[in-house]
Formats: sequence, structure tokens, C-alpha cells
Amino acid sequence: MDTTIRDQIDLDRISRRLDELCQIGATDRGGVTRLAYSEDETEAIEYVVGELGDEFTVRTDAIGNVFATTDPGTERSILLGSHLDSVFNGGRLDGTLGVVTALEAIEAVLAADVDLDVAPTLAIFRAEESARFGQHTIGSRGALGMLTGEDLTCVDQSGVPLWEAIQRAGFEPENLSEPTSHLDGVTEYLELHIEQGRVLDEAADDVGIVSSIRAPVRYRTTVTGANDHSGATPMNLRRDAIAAASEQILAIERIGTEASAAGDLVATVGDVTVPDGAINKVCGEVGYPIDVRSTNTEHRDAVEDRIVAELTAIADDRDVDLDLELLDRSEPVRMNESVRATMSDLADAAEIDYRIMPSGGGHDAMNFEHASIPAGLVFVPSIDGVSHNPDEETTERAIEAGTTLLAVVISESY
Amino acid sequence: MDTTIRDQIDLDRISRRLDELCQIGATDRGGVTRLAYSEDETEAIEYVVGELGDEFTVRTDAIGNVFATTDPGTERSILLGSHLDSVFNGGRLDGTLGVVTALEAIEAVLAADVDLDVAPTLAIFRAEESARFGQHTIGSRGALGMLTGEDLTCVDQSGVPLWEAIQRAGFEPENLSEPTSHLDGVTEYLELHIEQGRVLDEAADDVGIVSSIRAPVRYRTTVTGANDHSGATPMNLRRDAIAAASEQILAIERIGTEASAAGDLVATVGDVTVPDGAINKVCGEVGYPIDVRSTNTEHRDAVEDRIVAELTAIADDRDVDLDLELLDRSEPVRMNESVRATMSDLADAAEIDYRIMPSGGGHDAMNFEHASIPAGLVFVPSIDGVSHNPDEETTERAIEAGTTLLAVVISESY
Repeated sequence: MDTTIRDQIDLDRISRRLDELCQIGATDRGGVTRLAYSEDETEAIEYVVGELGDEFTVRTDAIGNVFATTDPGTERSILLGSHLDSVFNGGRLDGTLGVVTALEAIEAVLAADVDLDVAPTLAIFRAEESARFGQHTIGSRGALGMLTGEDLTCVDQSGVPLWEAIQRAGFEPENLSEPTSHLDGVTEYLELHIEQGRVLDEAADDVGIVSSIRAPVRYRTTVTGANDHSGATPMNLRRDAIAAASEQILAIERIGTEASAAGDLVATVGDVTVPDGAINKVCGEVGYPIDVRSTNTEHRDAVEDRIVAELTAIADDRDVDLDLELLDRSEPVRMNESVRATMSDLADAAEIDYRIMPSGGGHDAMNFEHASIPAGLVFVPSIDGVSHNPDEETTERAIEAGTTLLAVVISESY
Repeated sequence: MDTTIRDQIDLDRISRRLDELCQIGATDRGGVTRLAYSEDETEAIEYVVGELGDEFTVRTDAIGNVFATTDPGTERSILLGSHLDSVFNGGRLDGTLGVVTALEAIEAVLAADVDLDVAPTLAIFRAEESARFGQHTIGSRGALGMLTGEDLTCVDQSGVPLWEAIQRAGFEPENLSEPTSHLDGVTEYLELHIEQGRVLDEAADDVGIVSSIRAPVRYRTTVTGANDHSGATPMNLRRDAIAAASEQILAIERIGTEASAAGDLVATVGDVTVPDGAINKVCGEVGYPIDVRSTNTEHRDAVEDRIVAELTAIADDRDVDLDLELLDRSEPVRMNESVRATMSDLADAAEIDYRIMPSGGGHDAMNFEHASIPAGLVFVPSIDGVSHNPDEETTERAIEAGTTLLAVVISESY
């Protein structure tokens, strides 16, 4: 372990940059709203660019992604970064911590004056969050040539299409079948992100090295029974949609819990909507979404089959109608094994407490794996699992460890 | 059975009046919106008054209730009636059928020219539905001196207080500690209403004679767990408020079903609200109302205790917080036994298919029992249990049987 690099990491500088960034788009509820392609997102990017020393050369691609490289002449580069947009009233760390620690890692390596085989480049991707347009990782998908014309037609809450928002921000989203960035020489992509779950916090590990990204199967469920007067309808004459949905939700939880013992899996019902509910009614209709995720497609799809069969049996048993609408069926992403092995070895050498773990959500890094560019994803703890919320926090110890890991990977790249 | 009276019942006249009344406040969704103290309610009352022959003398009390008597000189009177206000987009029968059949019964008795010991009076009570002001049976409570000054301060969706709505309708709500109507000479009150449940329709009975009115215990329940990322939070680290609420709702259904076998009881959760739900979240907070009703207070309160204990145990078991706010604890009303016995005897004599049954909801009739004026409540079927809905229907056969029963009770009163 090269302590010269680690010694260059300046936690106060990281802290100052996080503090200053969370003023941009600050909300009166203590959080940050910097939506995709908003002026606040642009201002946050300009802030980071303003922090860059003379050793960086900045270029901006056709949809506003920013790349700041330390050696513009070289064909080969290791990319490090994340995003600066946020959800509505989000926290100060999601995305932002990834950009700030990537910059810090590059600066530490430069300051330590070690010989580099591959030049590091800071990447700031636009529009990672789906909060504004219902589409995730827009910037990195565009950079890699994965956006479609159809993606550009999706609209925000005010009806503004994505392509128009990109234009208003000063860019020209054309020829999207081609990557908007020249990334042929990128040897690997590294990203640090808060975990957004409770695993690291519960285990008291500083860092997670992501093995794979869970992918969801998602349904929209509608249960239709009969609306009745709650006082006037005997228990045995009811077709109660809320009771039926409750039995189904418990079945999903039970199947998910059993299946999580047999392999990687989570199964969730995170919302319930009753369009015409009232205290004095037996309920006639309930809707709820199902989200089943796993790093193992086969395991997940077997669980999906079991859930669908069980929900159908419960609906039949209670004489209610069941409608299941498939919303999403994505494929899990395995993070590059070689990058992972390198990171584990370097973490061991640096005496960093880490665990290998799956990621529950998607990040810009997964698009690099889709594009066959090796990618590494590093997690730091989310205290109490809090994410997408003004209370988002992690530990200084984890920030130091995670930044160190990024820096030593840069210094060892070849 | 006096067939001369029954022969005077004119089903076409009933049908015409129902058709004409449902034009007043008709909605574009096929229903009726005639809110309490609205111009439409007043217009509906004026329509019925316009249908009255010269034999009726009409008086209106200080809050707009209308009494049309056939013998203004007598001290004693049998009151028959119901209400003409409706819920938002309600049906054509709730309340209205009670007024129209009461009038028809009185007209049939007068047309049959039988000797009457007690003069019949048609009563049209204002504002029975709680849809506008959140308060039920305002008119009949006022008539009987049961409204309080506090009741008058409740407001509608636009912030208009009840007292102001009464004034705008042309009345002066003063001295409400005294009855707004002089009802000392009322020997009994009779009301016909749709059942609002499925019991008569399932049993194919024409008429229900109500034995008692179920009274509710009501709670507002809030379950608080922890908000988490659905993809990132393992099943064993969750404090899922939706799963906890689902287990509780099933427990309420199970306890209610068991208790309904041991005595009169219904237990219902008719709504679920998730303030911050999303497909990609483990839910941190759920609210739902509980409505437990019975004609037997002791049985109901024992069930209430069992439900509270079970919900608490489920919350403890799942490490979620439970808040139970008591909203209502009302006393069941037993309908007058003598009136009920008379109605049963007369129904037998008239060969009417009837059953003795509890009422699930409250009606103007219950206030007369509270005021120690004997009251009788007659139900006709709600087809498929539909109520408070444009699809409200009953059968012509039941209307004929129910009107006959009202008429023969008038003719036998002494």
C-alpha cells in the first residue's frame, strides 16, 4: 500500500465541496432538488469544473456530459465519476459523493506524483435519476450510444420532452445512434456511490465492492372485488379487495423471504392505492406494484412464477378478479471480475474493511458493462439505509477508505 | 288485510315521482348530487310539496324540515318520511324512495277512505347524509332538539359553516337546544329505506323489518416502519409498514368473521393510504381506518379488545410502531318492539315476504328512538347491495310490499 497516495487525500476538501454543492438547488426542507437537465444541474457541473486545476482539460459532449482528463493526448484513459442531478428533495451524497471522491482520488494520485500507465479522467454524467423524465442514466447511455429516438420523446411533469430539455440546457441531441462521447480508449470505469441500503451500516463495513446489480421484474397488480356498505354487508357476503390484496402482499413477502434464503432475492410491495376507499365501505378495488429483484435471473423468474400462481389462487379463493400487468423485466449485470479482483486485492493491501455485495439499484456503471467496458462500483454505507432523502449520510472513515480505493486503482492501472 | 287500501297504491305514480325527482341534481354520470341544504335539495322538497293535494297542510320548521299533515287540528299524529338530500353522485332511491312511498301510503289510506284514529303526516327531513358537512341526520336531530351549537360550526368542502348554509337556504337556526318542530303529539315515526346491503337481495325477501341499528366503534390506524430502498434492502433488515398493515388487516377480517358466527358483528377496513409509496421503496408508513359494528355493545367491545390486542402483537413482532386513534364509539339503537310486532303481524296478514334484520347504517328513524318516540324502519332490497351509487336499484314488487306495509300501519294506528 502506497501511503504517499493515501496521505494526499484531503477530507476537508471533500467536505467543503459537498457543502458547497448542496447549496445549489437547496430546498427549504433541508434537501437538494437538482433535476436532470435543470439549471441547477448545470450550475453544479460548472462548480466542479471551477474546482479543477490547470492539469485538467475539459470537454463537454453533445448532450452535456463532462469529461476532464489529465492527458488529452493519450488514447487510453481510466474513467472515474458519477452524476450531479438529484431526485426531488434528495440528499447531498447520491451521485455528488461519487463525483467529489473521483476528483479527490485523481488529485491525490497527481499530488503523489506516481508514474501512471493510464491517464485518469473525471466523468460527470447528466441525468442519472429518473425523477424528472422517468428514465434513468440518460447521460451515460447517451455517451455510450444506448439512447433511442423514443427515449428522447419522454416528457417531464410539465410536458417538456427530454430532447427539448437538452436543447434548453444548450446542447444538440443528434445522431444518438452513435455514442456522444469518444470512449474507445477507456480501459475501465470506476464509480463510488452510497449503498442506498442497510447492509454496510448493519455490518459496520466501510466499503462494498459490487459483484453484480440486481435487476427487477415488475408488475402492476389490480384486485377487483365488490363495493359494499361496511355496516350492512355480512362478513360472508363480501368480496373485499383490501383483504384479498393484504393476503397477496403477505404471500409475496413470505415467498420473497423464503427465496432470499436460497439465493440472492428481494421482493417488495412498496405502495397500495385504493381509488374509492372510505371508512364505511367494503372496498371494491385495490392496486399495488410488485418489485422482485435478483442478481440471478433463473432464481428470480422461478420466484416470479410462484408469486403469480399464489396470487391467482388467493384471488380465485376469494372470488375477486386479478389483473397483472408486466411493467419491466431487466437482466442483472455482473460487474467485471478482473476489476473486482483488483479492487479486492488493493483493499486488502490498504487494510480497508470491505465486503463483496450485490447492488440493489442501477447506476451509470452498469451501462459500461453493457457496452463491454470493464466497470467497478464501490459502495460506502448509507446510515440507517437512508437514500433519496435529505437525511442521507455516510461516515468520514468510509469516504476516506472509498477514495483511497479509487486512488490506488488509478495508480495500479495499466 | 284490507285490500281496498292496497288497491289504491299507484306504482306508476311512485315511478313517475322517482323519475322526476332524479332530474333534480342529475349528474352526467347517471346519478344525483343533491347535497344537504343545497338549492337542489330545496327544489326537490318543493317538487314533493307541489305533488300534495288540498288535503295536506304544509309547515316548514326553523331549519327547513317540512311536515305535511292531513289534520292540522289534531294533537296526535303518525309521522312517515325520510330525506331528499344525497351523497355526491348518489342513486335515485336513498332517502327519496322513503319520501315517495310515505306520501303514496298516506294517499292510499286517504283514497281508501278508512276511519283513522291518528292523522298521518308526511315528514321530509333535511340533510340526512354526511357527504357535505361530515354530520349525519342534521334535520331530524334539529327537529328533535338534538343539535348542538358546535354541530352548526362544522364546515363543508368550501369552508361554509352549516349555520350559514341553513341561513342561505332561507332559515334561521336559533334556539337549537329546543326542538325546531312541535313533535309532542307524534305517536310513532315510520321510515322506508333501501337496505344498502346484500341480505334481502341474496335471501329474495321483499321487505326487512329492522330490529336494531348497528353502531360502530371506529379507529384511525397508523403503522410506522422504516423507508428503505426496495432493491438494496435484504428481507431480514426490513420494517415494512405495508406488510405489517396487511397482516393486521387480515387479522381484523379473521376476528370479525369468527365473531360474526357468535353474534351480530361486522368488521371492516375500507381504505388504505400510503403517503409516500413507490414501486422501488420498502414502505415506512401506512394508514387505514377500522369500522366494527354490532347491535350488541358487549359483543362489539369484546371484539374491539381482541382486535387491539392482536394489532399490538403484530406490530411488536414486526418492530413497527402502531398508533390507534379512536374516532367514534356509538351505542346501538333497538327499534321499538311494539311497532316491530305490529309491523310483523300486518306483514303476515298482507302476505308480504319479510325478515327481521339489523340495519348496518343509521337513519333518521334512530333519532326518534333516541327521543323516546317509537319508530319503525322498513327495508326494501338493494340489488347487488349497491348504495350511494347511480346504480342503486330495488324491485317494483318490494316497493309495492313496503308501501302496503306503511299504509296498513297507518290504518291500524290508534
